[in-house]
Amino acid sequence: MIQTPKNIAVIGSGLVGSLLSIYLRRLGHQVTIFDRRPDIRTIQFSGRSINLAMSNRGWRALREVGLEAEVKKIAIPLYQRAMHINEQPVYFQKYGKEGEAIWSISRGNLNKRMIDLAEEAGAQFRFNEKVWDINLPEATLYTGKSEKSKWKEYRYDIIFGCDGAFSRVRHRMQRRSRFDYSQDFIDVGYKELTIPPNEDGTHRLDKHSFHIWPRGKFMLIAMPNTDGSFTCTLFLPFEGEVSFDSITKKKEAKAFFKEYFPNVRKEIEDLTKSFMKNPTSAMVTMKCYPWTYWDKVALVGDSAHAVVPFYGQGMNAGFEDIFVLNELIHALGDDWEAIFKQYQEKRKPNADAIAELSYRNFKEMSSKTADPKFLLQKKIEKRFAEKYPDKWVPVYSRVTFSERPYAEALAIGDHQEAIMQKVMEIPDIVSIWDTEVVEKRILELLES
Amino acid sequence: MIQTPKNIAVIGSGLVGSLLSIYLRRLGHQVTIFDRRPDIRTIQFSGRSINLAMSNRGWRALREVGLEAEVKKIAIPLYQRAMHINEQPVYFQKYGKEGEAIWSISRGNLNKRMIDLAEEAGAQFRFNEKVWDINLPEATLYTGKSEKSKWKEYRYDIIFGCDGAFSRVRHRMQRRSRFDYSQDFIDVGYKELTIPPNEDGTHRLDKHSFHIWPRGKFMLIAMPNTDGSFTCTLFLPFEGEVSFDSITKKKEAKAFFKEYFPNVRKEIEDLTKSFMKNPTSAMVTMKCYPWTYWDKVALVGDSAHAVVPFYGQGMNAGFEDIFVLNELIHALGDDWEAIFKQYQEKRKPNADAIAELSYRNFKEMSSKTADPKFLLQKKIEKRFAEKYPDKWVPVYSRVTFSERPYAEALAIGDHQEAIMQKVMEIPDIVSIWDTEVVEKRILELLES
Repeated sequence: MIQTPKNIAVIGSGLVGSLLSIYLRRLGHQVTIFDRRPDIRTIQFSGRSINLAMSNRGWRALREVGLEAEVKKIAIPLYQRAMHINEQPVYFQKYGKEGEAIWSISRGNLNKRMIDLAEEAGAQFRFNEKVWDINLPEATLYTGKSEKSKWKEYRYDIIFGCDGAFSRVRHRMQRRSRFDYSQDFIDVGYKELTIPPNEDGTHRLDKHSFHIWPRGKFMLIAMPNTDGSFTCTLFLPFEGEVSFDSITKKKEAKAFFKEYFPNVRKEIEDLTKSFMKNPTSAMVTMKCYPWTYWDKVALVGDSAHAVVPFYGQGMNAGFEDIFVLNELIHALGDDWEAIFKQYQEKRKPNADAIAELSYRNFKEMSSKTADPKFLLQKKIEKRFAEKYPDKWVPVYSRVTFSERPYAEALAIGDHQEAIMQKVMEIPDIVSIWDTEVVEKRILELLES
Repeated sequence: MIQTPKNIAVIGSGLVGSLLSIYLRRLGHQVTIFDRRPDIRTIQFSGRSINLAMSNRGWRALREVGLEAEVKKIAIPLYQRAMHINEQPVYFQKYGKEGEAIWSISRGNLNKRMIDLAEEAGAQFRFNEKVWDINLPEATLYTGKSEKSKWKEYRYDIIFGCDGAFSRVRHRMQRRSRFDYSQDFIDVGYKELTIPPNEDGTHRLDKHSFHIWPRGKFMLIAMPNTDGSFTCTLFLPFEGEVSFDSITKKKEAKAFFKEYFPNVRKEIEDLTKSFMKNPTSAMVTMKCYPWTYWDKVALVGDSAHAVVPFYGQGMNAGFEDIFVLNELIHALGDDWEAIFKQYQEKRKPNADAIAELSYRNFKEMSSKTADPKFLLQKKIEKRFAEKYPDKWVPVYSRVTFSERPYAEALAIGDHQEAIMQKVMEIPDIVSIWDTEVVEKRILELLES
């Protein structure tokens, strides 16, 4: 026993809330999880979620509590991107070295499994119970039918806010003075679509690839599920010439897919009907600080740092929060004030870094993929990284296949970018890009 | 009559709410002003406000409705900064050209006068009535004793949120998707102190100066009031070696003033007692977007864009919002949707610009005033601006003594800064800074 058992409330039964509860149960605490929504295991999953891409950080957090194998059962490894350009054959880009993969998991499936596991670990769930307010210094929470109805009061030793990007717990912290907060929406929305399995249950596209149909300002992606289907996500600007705003009728939706996605549109289930029916969702970067209140309340996961999904790191970052919290608990024992203080100080720079990296990936995808200079730069980097794998680990690998801090990946990425800017200034780079001259210049710049 | 009369609610009876009500009354609308606090005219003003510095933009907005002369009666023009450095004589820096001044006004006095004027113009005030929620598409507001008590409902044609940096109206808009929002607190707080008048009612310091006691990481300022007193503001970090946190006893407060402000401490009324008693306030930059909802709801002033007070432009920016709104009303008549759309599009870049300029002034004051290179740069700029007043209008003058957009001042300021960076690279600039060589170089850079 490294800690005195506490009576702990976790707000939110999502992925982070469930995993944190499992950790806390292993540490011997009493855990009650509140969720304003019904038990996800009892309902049809609403389906407005991009599939998850579990990578090293996520797996490490699961491994720590012995759940890696269990979760791998519902995950499919993706070793490469499959790029679908109209009138060209599909081409593949490996994600990393041999065997390195990101794992596609349906959010609904994973969440159901995690709740099962948390329940098995002894956590108590209170579904359909809406938390409206928190008294921070007293770790008291108030629930009720509505904001104006009579409230029930529960007092705990500690409250964890795992209630996502629009967190109620954070909402209360936000009203305090000197609480920094920002929410920034991007002007692109997304919509979920589905490619069903073949009749024999197999996948219609290569199941070990992350499929992308890049179209400049917009794109379609598809990630496999274990049942043979693919979850597709269409990213498209809200406003503008080609946008969600400009497609309001079935006929327009049909024409849009015919023009831009002729080779996949027939695979998508009830394409125009689904397009009209499924909701269009927005994406936000949310930052705040502090994340904790004394030894009483802490935010974990999206409630502390929501990012846009273009690096596939949202869940991984949330799971890493839990992993780091657990390390600090083991180091500091019962001193929750110190645990919370070090937790936020350690995680905040990394949360900011992955927010920045995710946002940059969005900008890169929507504006740079058509820029020949940018594509040449990527080619030069790739060539160099393959030849000198010890000297040049790409940022993507640092983020996805490593457990080093996100902030380090960002800093090294910036350094690499500065080097590449100089490389791109080499006269006639377009024709000599794959020569030794360029290689030597990079080596030189790396050493200076 | 340029507009069909509407039934309008203004939330907040502060400076912006009162002035906007006067404008709306002149346009023939019915106006009700709600304020959660009591009538400021009936209470002792709480006094945690820095004195206001009214400059050109503020005066223009008052002039438009014939109130300039009325308000000048309670204002004192300041033509210069008076810099108080220990063991040196006070030195003065003129703000602008002959006759250019910023005007010191007590916030309490001005607010009382503005409420009188709004009342005379026919606006209805509902003090002590707390607005808890807004229905945006229906322009309905809900008031009541507390958030959980029974609420009264009022429906209007239009609602203006003039309820400051912590606006309830914005709070409702913030819960919508795709609403961008940020609040950033600085790590410096402030506390109000007072220098009372001499026994004969005259001012103890020069009354036409803005007095500054700069001390690197912190500073004291004093601005005159019409009753012979000065409102002083101490800006000091919240945490750190010399900070509000480090001064918790009377003895420590006394020692602090003795060490850093030996020449003014005896002038300040009940210095240590006031220091211990008066609240320490925080400062925030708040940005958001959009500012309006259809033709129903609009944010004006601090509720849309709160800035740190280091440029003295907070109120001026709010008054300029009203001036611009009024111009659009005259141009667009009854089309409130177009008025609100153009209002936010026109004002947002300028609000962002004054936020940035205000924040930079804070950074400049707290970190650069001790940097000899920075001071030399300022000297070179000043010399050049005096010799070529048409070619080099300093940013301070563009912000304070002009009515051109803040965004333009920021852009030109950045251009001037880039030029000065090159000038500072001239070899041996320290010794030749006041020669023709430098002057020619600036002229050259201005023309390139």
